[in-house]
Amino acid sequence: MTMRDTERPVGVFDSGLGGLTVLKELHRLLPCEDLIYFGDSGRTPYGTKSKDTVIRYTFQDINFLLSHNVKMIVIACNTASACSLPHVVKSCRVPVAEVVGPGSRAAAGGTKVAVIGTPATIESGVYKEALKSVSPDIQYFGKACPLFVPLAEEGWWDNDISRAVAAEYLRPVAESGADTLILGCTHYPLLIPSIRAVLGESIRLINSASAVASEVRSRLEETGLLRSRSGTEGKISFYTSDSPEKFASLGGMFLGQAVKDVNKIDIEAF
Amino acid sequence: MTMRDTERPVGVFDSGLGGLTVLKELHRLLPCEDLIYFGDSGRTPYGTKSKDTVIRYTFQDINFLLSHNVKMIVIACNTASACSLPHVVKSCRVPVAEVVGPGSRAAAGGTKVAVIGTPATIESGVYKEALKSVSPDIQYFGKACPLFVPLAEEGWWDNDISRAVAAEYLRPVAESGADTLILGCTHYPLLIPSIRAVLGESIRLINSASAVASEVRSRLEETGLLRSRSGTEGKISFYTSDSPEKFASLGGMFLGQAVKDVNKIDIEAF
Repeated sequence: MTMRDTERPVGVFDSGLGGLTVLKELHRLLPCEDLIYFGDSGRTPYGTKSKDTVIRYTFQDINFLLSHNVKMIVIACNTASACSLPHVVKSCRVPVAEVVGPGSRAAAGGTKVAVIGTPATIESGVYKEALKSVSPDIQYFGKACPLFVPLAEEGWWDNDISRAVAAEYLRPVAESGADTLILGCTHYPLLIPSIRAVLGESIRLINSASAVASEVRSRLEETGLLRSRSGTEGKISFYTSDSPEKFASLGGMFLGQAVKDVNKIDIEAF
Repeated sequence: MTMRDTERPVGVFDSGLGGLTVLKELHRLLPCEDLIYFGDSGRTPYGTKSKDTVIRYTFQDINFLLSHNVKMIVIACNTASACSLPHVVKSCRVPVAEVVGPGSRAAAGGTKVAVIGTPATIESGVYKEALKSVSPDIQYFGKACPLFVPLAEEGWWDNDISRAVAAEYLRPVAESGADTLILGCTHYPLLIPSIRAVLGESIRLINSASAVASEVRSRLEETGLLRSRSGTEGKISFYTSDSPEKFASLGGMFLGQAVKDVNKIDIEAF
């Protein structure tokens, strides 16, 4: 491992803006790392599309990040992780981190674990598999919530409508007696007030963003790729396949700080 | 005009499934015509994306239909019509019909005309312009309804949630005193029960699908391109950029009949 390898950026991608919640945790935990974020806003959402399409888009996203010489790739999108992971891990020339594994491991200790996500994520069944490998005794319950992403993007996080939609989707979760709920989509943490309004305070909610960031740090350490120049803050670069202005103006609500210097790319060329 | 030209198909496209409501009217009014439908389900929706992106996608969609030797193109998508029309009309080698003009002309006689549509359609301002050219005295009121498309695709057309969302979006329409409402998105006719529940029975609702079909017939007649082999029913061919199975299973609810023989294409290659 040369000095130069540790200097290379970490690449992060999502179908759009939701993955910025993961980027935020990565920057908090790994402040020295340069981070490159790609949001595929021109083709968002992934979660209502078919597995084949999501796999194809995921490989284009990864090729784009590889063209920036990244040392590791973080799939900050549950749908892309759920549909593509075995294909990606097998073929990628840099280490790949994703969200399903860390989110599932964070649910350890739960007896009845519910997972909410996009239709593509729930249909893939990957959370069921991942939870079984955490503990064969976990009872799994999955529920797709297709309107949660558009609600989050509309900014309706805690009003009568978001609570009514949450009630409709989460009634079977409540009836399942789940003690743990994995928020299996990076948009969903925004809706926590509405989710809590339906499920109460006693259920444990798992937002995988911080679990993913911990996993990325461990893997950078294990592979000798961690950048450790203390005192130097890493750069964050943003790329999108739709309007940079729109990305910047909406991205702030996911990142929790201003999003600047967004570049537009033609992802279909990768 | 040779005989062969009249035999060529009419090409229709939309960002996804909504344009099937237009296809249905075209087939009803022009039963002898062969129709080719492309739904860009792999990149749907267009309505929340930027104008530049929608223009680029529209040209790819048109290039695909031209590769099938169509004699006319119907843009069965309000967002694509709103963002792209001047560019398309200027450069296309076959006649192009779209939805904004016929919908606006169908509103003639209205005094206060409200238009609901996707954010991209409303931001474009094209309905305001089109209505002004119908009559300079029309008072225009536009309102974007971003959640209506996902609601329609979730199948929630007339429940407590769809009525609550309609009430939220349409309150300013009711307050505007509009006598006419253009449904400026091909998904919205599915939500008419919820729209009526908020706005009452007296407001005139304009669904442009039938107005578009009439316009297409007139233009085929004017240009000598109408196919008039009575007794022969035209073929309908379906193409999509996402899963054909998904297109077929969801498409039926828009077309009002079974959707068969759907082909998958790589739209990014056009």
